[in-house]
Amino acid sequence: MKHRTTLHAGRYLGFYEVNGWEFVSRQNASAVVVLIAVNDAQQLLLVEQFRPALQQSVIELPAGLVGDMDDPNEDILLAAQRELLEETGYFSEELEFLLSCPTSSGLTDEIISFIRARKLQRRGPGGGDASENITVHEIPVTEVDQWLSEHIRAGKPVDPKIYTALYWLEKQTP
Amino acid sequence: MKHRTTLHAGRYLGFYEVNGWEFVSRQNASAVVVLIAVNDAQQLLLVEQFRPALQQSVIELPAGLVGDMDDPNEDILLAAQRELLEETGYFSEELEFLLSCPTSSGLTDEIISFIRARKLQRRGPGGGDASENITVHEIPVTEVDQWLSEHIRAGKPVDPKIYTALYWLEKQTP
Repeated sequence: MKHRTTLHAGRYLGFYEVNGWEFVSRQNASAVVVLIAVNDAQQLLLVEQFRPALQQSVIELPAGLVGDMDDPNEDILLAAQRELLEETGYFSEELEFLLSCPTSSGLTDEIISFIRARKLQRRGPGGGDASENITVHEIPVTEVDQWLSEHIRAGKPVDPKIYTALYWLEKQTP
Repeated sequence: MKHRTTLHAGRYLGFYEVNGWEFVSRQNASAVVVLIAVNDAQQLLLVEQFRPALQQSVIELPAGLVGDMDDPNEDILLAAQRELLEETGYFSEELEFLLSCPTSSGLTDEIISFIRARKLQRRGPGGGDASENITVHEIPVTEVDQWLSEHIRAGKPVDPKIYTALYWLEKQTP
């Protein structure tokens, strides 16, 4: 990027300035995948994990970094398949790329890729890799909205992209 | 925050580490408001502006920082009213807090507050303050989905929180 100045190179994030505008960029990932995965029982898979930045656990769609392991050229759908299995214990036979979107364009260049996962088979307990401690929630698609509302009332942070997923699941878009 | 180490203190963002986890935090804002505003013609107000981090313009909901002007204790609904007027030219008589959500909890502690704006009156052209160059889009609510798809096909980045807004507008939730 033209005129980009490095303010601090972290291990996972880089802190940059361009024309007086500050932002962070992931250093160790070529993409971020976010999974919209519904199992045969018509349950949406959600994950809950402690987020150090917020110092509390957050309810989110399953997600992970692409190319953060040994292979920087890891295929995005294979990465999505790996992350879904690691986090939720479900293997998906059919993954479809939906859309890439910026998450918070005022402070990061992060772009997430929404992936629709179908034909799910439970292969294990999930819970993430050795560095993660993830709780899996399997919530009937028709009850997710109310389930989220209950957790929000109880003070639990919820990622708004879950509602994006609900919108697309109803519309069968994008 | 316990054990938080400052890696770099920027002017607008701080870059921190806690237990080996890196993240950024806004320095000059007590909150971020995101507006779900529909005018009397049943059009959803969207904004498009150049985002330096991405080096391209992004289609988003109107949004802005709370407490970044003279008053660090600025009321969140008054801030939302101000930002909506600045960015879109519409004054809202009726603002309602909906929900606060983390935007990208893996790399920032940023929390956005969704605000529903009703009873809109056009007061000016919008376009943002002196430092901004914002294009306003007024799209019939029932056509937003297709309008976004056309822009996505043309390569324009779209913030996924717009779909969150569409979901809530349809459901009349949260």
